Parts: sequence; structure tokens; C-alpha cells
Amino acid sequence: MADALSEFGLIAKHFAPLATHCGALALTDDACVLPQEAGRETVVTADALTAGVHFLASDPPNLIASKALRVNLSDLAAKGAEPVGYLLALALPQSIDEAWLAEFARGLGEDQQVFGVSLLGGDTTATPGPLTIAITALGTVPAGAMIRRSGACAGDHVFVSGTIGDAGAGLKLLQDGKADDAYLVGRYQQPMPRLRLGLALRGVATASLDVSDGLLADLGHIAEVSGVRIVVAADAVPRSAALRRIDPDGVVRAVTAGDDYEIAFTALSPKAVESAAAAAQTPVTRIGRIEPGQGVALIDGQGREIPVTRAGFTHF
Amino acid sequence: MADALSEFGLIAKHFAPLATHCGALALTDDACVLPQEAGRETVVTADALTAGVHFLASDPPNLIASKALRVNLSDLAAKGAEPVGYLLALALPQSIDEAWLAEFARGLGEDQQVFGVSLLGGDTTATPGPLTIAITALGTVPAGAMIRRSGACAGDHVFVSGTIGDAGAGLKLLQDGKADDAYLVGRYQQPMPRLRLGLALRGVATASLDVSDGLLADLGHIAEVSGVRIVVAADAVPRSAALRRIDPDGVVRAVTAGDDYEIAFTALSPKAVESAAAAAQTPVTRIGRIEPGQGVALIDGQGREIPVTRAGFTHF
Repeated sequence: MADALSEFGLIAKHFAPLATHCGALALTDDACVLPQEAGRETVVTADALTAGVHFLASDPPNLIASKALRVNLSDLAAKGAEPVGYLLALALPQSIDEAWLAEFARGLGEDQQVFGVSLLGGDTTATPGPLTIAITALGTVPAGAMIRRSGACAGDHVFVSGTIGDAGAGLKLLQDGKADDAYLVGRYQQPMPRLRLGLALRGVATASLDVSDGLLADLGHIAEVSGVRIVVAADAVPRSAALRRIDPDGVVRAVTAGDDYEIAFTALSPKAVESAAAAAQTPVTRIGRIEPGQGVALIDGQGREIPVTRAGFTHF
Repeated sequence: MADALSEFGLIAKHFAPLATHCGALALTDDACVLPQEAGRETVVTADALTAGVHFLASDPPNLIASKALRVNLSDLAAKGAEPVGYLLALALPQSIDEAWLAEFARGLGEDQQVFGVSLLGGDTTATPGPLTIAITALGTVPAGAMIRRSGACAGDHVFVSGTIGDAGAGLKLLQDGKADDAYLVGRYQQPMPRLRLGLALRGVATASLDVSDGLLADLGHIAEVSGVRIVVAADAVPRSAALRRIDPDGVVRAVTAGDDYEIAFTALSPKAVESAAAAAQTPVTRIGRIEPGQGVALIDGQGREIPVTRAGFTHF
């Protein structure tokens, strides 16, 4: 980081305007204070992103900021939580200049307006390593309403929002220097947290999470924690027209690609899910069913299991 | 990070046992859920530490963990908050092996018992850069009881807990390879968050923060946000016997050294502060007064201002 601005100067200039919640005290205090309310619970989650691992250092700074915030809001969405705000721990390499930071802050500010959240606090440090962005996001739910991973039961159906595999394809296009498909690249660089759907799924979904490691790998987490087996019909997995155009036969690639940030969930009543999806104006597709047993299976139209060698994408 | 353990394996083995709060769901979910209560507020703060900047990469891993947690608990202490737990975002370089992680987790576990807190969630990523530890700590206060930086008034007195300058001297000993004074080195490597004092200062202190950048620099934050002038008597600044032995005349060094993690605060009634200090069994010293005006001045026994060239230590 250039010496032109001290940490305090940076905070005041670029980040204090983002502290729109009155409890954030304009970032002039050690901590943020948030109201509590009888009958509600706080939902809190943390996700960190490192340049070269979770995003490309050459990505536009406003999109890096947006992605870092959105992957956290996506966790709140999958839990049925209403977002309140976030804390930001930034480790900045020397190469970051103030113009970059201004763009980064602009990206956060725009998303704050879209999602109705505030910066609540944070910390900025210098690092000889790559840019690292650690965000902790806070939201609230009515007491007992958080949708966990552990509630899936045999007889439930499995659903996913939006389309699967776009972000993985977008990343590959970027890596190959063929970033001509703005839709697919955008799905990688700027995911859309499904907050409205998450709210609508309270009391409907029996288990839920957001798809970050890959659909099959993430459904594996639900299967493990719920103690059930999940069977996914390959033909039912929703893939976008843009993805099918460049990869017509890539269902296995799609269900093992990461970074979708769609919501995968289970529910007993397809009708209730349909209503929730309509209320949230969010596309939802039924892709499978819950059975007794364990693990996740991808099956073809004849019910035969499709071998999936790559159990799932992991950033680590 | 060695390939032997995946992120999920690491979490389950070393960190899940630290998730003692039932709302942390044994780290098997996307988020943690915490109860809310009428008449209380949530206090949340974030502090990040980077190897080579905030600690030495060669420090014992259990002490690195302990320091990362304690500097965050220290912020809660200064706000009068009761700690609940913390989220941990770890960026791990390749050089970290499982034995190191086990020691790191042991340090966290021991401090969790001391301070009654739980790991609530987090994230682990690989980095080609140095080890970075970003912690977000959560606590609670009765509504309206958080002690802010902004309440200091002319006529108030200025106080500080414990002794000042020890950690700075300990760091210098470590850097010079003369780490023979276990007390001073310990004050740098493992600060003691003044949680009991913070609780006792609710309703007594008019403004408060923890001393991390250096006593004068941090009092400068109170002066700025409260819109007052702070006058500190150099002779009154509490320095330990160990520090005075190696640096008898170093008052200016002490008040500009960082990492003390004592509480500096203002209050109208020295008698009420005395009672609070006694209740918390924590040493507290009166070091100055609040006047109309702005800025911070260090004065000698004759009331003359002592020039302080180094306005304060900063990690950035």
C-alpha cells in the first residue's frame, strides 16, 4: 500500500461512508452495537477470499468487492436470514493504490444499496502476500426459523435455484483468455445471493445451503449432516442456454463446478416450494429425492448411477 | 499447507471441538445462530493479524492463536461487553503443517476456557503469502450500556489499567534476540484482555478504548471523537518495575509503544473508578484530565508540554 494514506485516513475517506448503520458509529469506535429483539436470533457467517485462489487479481476491484460481499450474503440467504451488515478485514499488498481502493469501496457501496446492508466494522493491515478479504456477515431470523443443513428426511425432494455450472464455465473462459461470454463470466465474477428465496423458504425447506464447492459436494454436506442419501437426476439439473451452447454434454462438469452460489435445498412439499419460488420471483427446479442411506448419487434417465470421479471442487 | 488434510478434514479434526456453543452447530452448517434478548445489544468487532507485522512467524503457534483472540476480546472489554464467541478466518501458507495447527487450536481452546467463549464459525483458505488471522468477536451488553469513545467531557479524569510500555519493550527484546525477560516478552506475546474491568466500568466510564496503537495515539482517538483535549501527566503513567529497570527514562517510549491492550478511559468520579477497579481486582491509575480544546498533551511535573515526535505506533 502506498504511504500516501495512513490506515486511519483510508478508513475515514473510503470506508466510513459505507458505515450507514447507526450502530457502526461511523467506524470511529472499537466495535459496532446492534439491537437485539425478543423472539429473534442472530445469524453470523464468515467467508474469506484470496487473490489467485477465489478471484483473479486482475478482476475489476468493484467486482472483487461485490463478490466478497455476495458470497457471504449467499450464506445468509441459504439460512433464510435477513441481512443486516458485515465486517471487513482487508490484508492489502503494496501494489494496491488509492484508485483501486476507491473502486473497491464503490463496489461495496453499490451492493449495500442493492441488498440493504451496512459496513459495521473491520480492520485493514498491510501484507507482503496477496490481497485477502475476510468478511463476517450478520443477519437475523425469527427464533427457530434458521434453515439448517441437518433437517433433510427420506421422502423429501431436492431442489436448486437458478442454473448450475455457469460460474465454473465463466472461470474457465477467463483462464483461457476467452472472456467473450459476458453472461457466464458475470456469473463467476458477480454471483447473485438468493435472499428473497431464502426468506420464502423458511418453514418450507427442511435443509438448505448455498452451492459454493459444487452441487454434488454441497449436497454431500446435507446428506452427511442429515444422515440421508441424496439422489440427483442428471437430466433435471438446470443448465443455462449459454452453458449448454458451449458444453452440451457437461452435466458432470456442471454439478462438480464451484462458485454457483445458488441455493440447494430439500422440502417435503413441491407445491409449497412452487409457491415460495413464485413469491420470491426466483426460478427453482426439482432435481432429486432423499432416501434412507448415505452419500450422493447422480443418476441417468434409466436410473443408473453416473460415475463422478471429481467429488467436488474445493478452494483449498 | 500440506495436502494430507482437506479443509473439511482440518475443520472437523482441529476446530470443530472448539465450537462449544450449541448455536455453532459443531461447524457443520453455513452459519451460527445466536439468541437475542429484549433489553440487550450485540457488540461486534474485528481485528486481523499478519505474520511479520503483528506477530513473529517464529512465535509459538499457541501464543499466536491466543494473541489473535485476546486482541479482539480486548476490544469487547473496552466496550464493557460480555464476550460470547468469535469467528476465525485463517489464510494458511504452505509451510504450516498439522502439528502447527494442532498447537494453534490448543492455544485457542485454552483461552476459550479462560474467557468463557466459543468458536462460532469461520473459513480456512490457502495463501502464497504470510499467515493471516482475521477474527470477528461477538459480545453483548445491556441496551445502551456499551462504553463508547465519544463520551469524554471537560472535567473528567483520565485513567489506564495495568502498566504501559511493557509490550513494546518485549517486542524490542525479541527483535534484538534478547528475550530473557519472560515478563516483558509475555506482555507482548500474550496480552490480557481486561474483561472484568470493562464490565465494572459500565455506567462509570464516559469514554473508553483499548490501547493498541500506543497510549497517546489511542487517547487521541477519544479526544477527536469526544471533541475534547486530553492532558496526560508523564510522571503518572504506570510503568512496570521490569520496564523501569531496563529503560528508566523511557516515558515517551512507553506512551508511544503499541500492543499494551490495557483499557484507557475517562470518568468524572475517581471514587467510582476506585470501586470499579477494586470490584474487578484490576490495577487502575489516574493519569490525566480532560479539558476543553483538542488533541493530546504529555506534560512534565512543572506542567510543561513534553514534545512527542512519534505520534503513535501504527501497524500500517
